[in-house]
Amino acid sequence: MSDNTIKHSSQEEGIVKLSILEMNRMSVEEFHEADKMPLVVVLDDVRSLYNVGSVFRTADAFRVESIHLCGITATPDGTLKAQQEIHKTALGAEDSVEWKYFANALDSVRELKEKGYRVLAVEQCHGSIMLQNFTPDNQPTAVVLGNEVKGVHQEVIDECDGCLEIPQFGTKHSLNVSTTAGIIIWKFAEANF
Amino acid sequence: MSDNTIKHSSQEEGIVKLSILEMNRMSVEEFHEADKMPLVVVLDDVRSLYNVGSVFRTADAFRVESIHLCGITATPDGTLKAQQEIHKTALGAEDSVEWKYFANALDSVRELKEKGYRVLAVEQCHGSIMLQNFTPDNQPTAVVLGNEVKGVHQEVIDECDGCLEIPQFGTKHSLNVSTTAGIIIWKFAEANF
Repeated sequence: MSDNTIKHSSQEEGIVKLSILEMNRMSVEEFHEADKMPLVVVLDDVRSLYNVGSVFRTADAFRVESIHLCGITATPDGTLKAQQEIHKTALGAEDSVEWKYFANALDSVRELKEKGYRVLAVEQCHGSIMLQNFTPDNQPTAVVLGNEVKGVHQEVIDECDGCLEIPQFGTKHSLNVSTTAGIIIWKFAEANF
Repeated sequence: MSDNTIKHSSQEEGIVKLSILEMNRMSVEEFHEADKMPLVVVLDDVRSLYNVGSVFRTADAFRVESIHLCGITATPDGTLKAQQEIHKTALGAEDSVEWKYFANALDSVRELKEKGYRVLAVEQCHGSIMLQNFTPDNQPTAVVLGNEVKGVHQEVIDECDGCLEIPQFGTKHSLNVSTTAGIIIWKFAEANF
């Protein structure tokens, strides 16, 4: 455990929670100016407002470049219900993280590819690359997450450069969209340290 | 990109989604018999039924050994509302993953330590170890996740062997509980490949 400098005497040395002020949280203006990870998260036909808000919050935490909201995915300027529900989970991250709406996810994917992004669908596919074998590099990348039930549309996968798969070993083989986004975004964030 | 065997011609080679049958999902009985990761997830005063259900689903996907539900955290055999809401997110993973209830999280932590588990609070603390610097080894480990607003109680942290922190760089510094669980559980799962 040479890497892990865990203190094994928290009671004596006092492992104390950080106060809000000690967290050095950015203002929204500082966030807009700050360097971002070269990662775009594309949500295609995500039904749950909770998932949308949660992805905004995770994207804020790791300074994701942008979120593309596609198809039926609600936007932070949508209906009053969408605004309220997204805000309840995003807790304001919908104001810090840049986002853009596309009626059709194919237009998002094509725009990203024209701009030089590698676009990867997050899915369980034949020929997909397992997340543990994937090493993010500096290439700007977009990841596409799909609908809670149907996943990423096959025609969107057909436009992607490949599939990234989170291996699963249980009875369900279907992670929650916001959990999936968290794992994938963390994978990219960790490679930046 | 030598590690990343992404196919760059998905249209020609056809990256096709797996069918349900191709996913090799386990039955609940097979899950109970299967080897688990030596990881226990402790939820202390988690308010949201959605978060509880989502953690079950992630724990199923990566074969977490057990979930300890503490304090106000709802259990899958609780009120009808709790049963329904947990099931809606867990999608049945509440039947595969082993769980145990403790009225006080301190009793969970003490039991785990007596059994030889290293117990780590997932929090933003002075002296915490950053997740990117943490390398899970074979030591049985428990991670404690706290309330959505208040986090892990300081008196629970005092009983832990250390704090594990997910670094955050945005305006909020507060990831969703189910997202946090996903990132942490994945970190342990990835180390097992």
